[in-house]
Amino acid sequence: MDPVNERRSDCPISLSLEVFGDRWTLLVIRDLMFKNRRQFRDFLRAEEGIASNVLADRLRRLTDAGIVTKTQHLTDARRSIYRLTQKGVELAPILIEIVLWAARHERTAAPAEELAQLRDDRAHVIASIRNAHVGEPETPT
Amino acid sequence: MDPVNERRSDCPISLSLEVFGDRWTLLVIRDLMFKNRRQFRDFLRAEEGIASNVLADRLRRLTDAGIVTKTQHLTDARRSIYRLTQKGVELAPILIEIVLWAARHERTAAPAEELAQLRDDRAHVIASIRNAHVGEPETPT
Repeated sequence: MDPVNERRSDCPISLSLEVFGDRWTLLVIRDLMFKNRRQFRDFLRAEEGIASNVLADRLRRLTDAGIVTKTQHLTDARRSIYRLTQKGVELAPILIEIVLWAARHERTAAPAEELAQLRDDRAHVIASIRNAHVGEPETPT
Repeated sequence: MDPVNERRSDCPISLSLEVFGDRWTLLVIRDLMFKNRRQFRDFLRAEEGIASNVLADRLRRLTDAGIVTKTQHLTDARRSIYRLTQKGVELAPILIEIVLWAARHERTAAPAEELAQLRDDRAHVIASIRNAHVGEPETPT
């Protein structure tokens, strides 16, 4: 998030926080990864109430970081379609660990059966996410 | 990080980001977890150059969130000792996944042998972190 694009350090945690260390970026990733949102207006529907200028900034940063691709909708060139790249899909284990930590320590809305799946069948969940993004058709409905 | 302490939503990812969704908080956790830093002046030495007002704010928020405890140094009451709680220690899997993701996708300073250990012997690394924090003496040197 540094405007002059200088690294604070070469620590992998610090570098990662320069990419997604803010209150909103991982929510956009969540919506791409778990809610199959693909268009700007879809992300605006997130219940946390992301502002459109914040959303535009985060999508641009994610695209610049190689985590998201932006393509034109096949039948409506005014619309953009956002998708996770391989680098983006590989954020799944981080998000899963965040969900499990919060479910243990905070009062959350995470359903018990989904938590059990994340905890006990993580490899399958990650493979499903990967398949959903790699084999995705060009124009989602 | 919301000043009025209102949740944006009950989503576990959103709740977690309200606790550590910023550029600095997980670096303080990193220093507690992997570098055994315990005192205010130690955290200020982080190579990312955290400002003392930011550090004081983050330590206060982490203490409020039950992730860090603050106690007085036994022989010098002016000094505080910060330690991870059980809730804080359980952030380890998140940090490990962040390290592994960055090492795959960014140019980092993470040593290859440490990465291999995180990847192949994660349970042992997490157990070591837990033991180091649970069995820690009251007054570190």
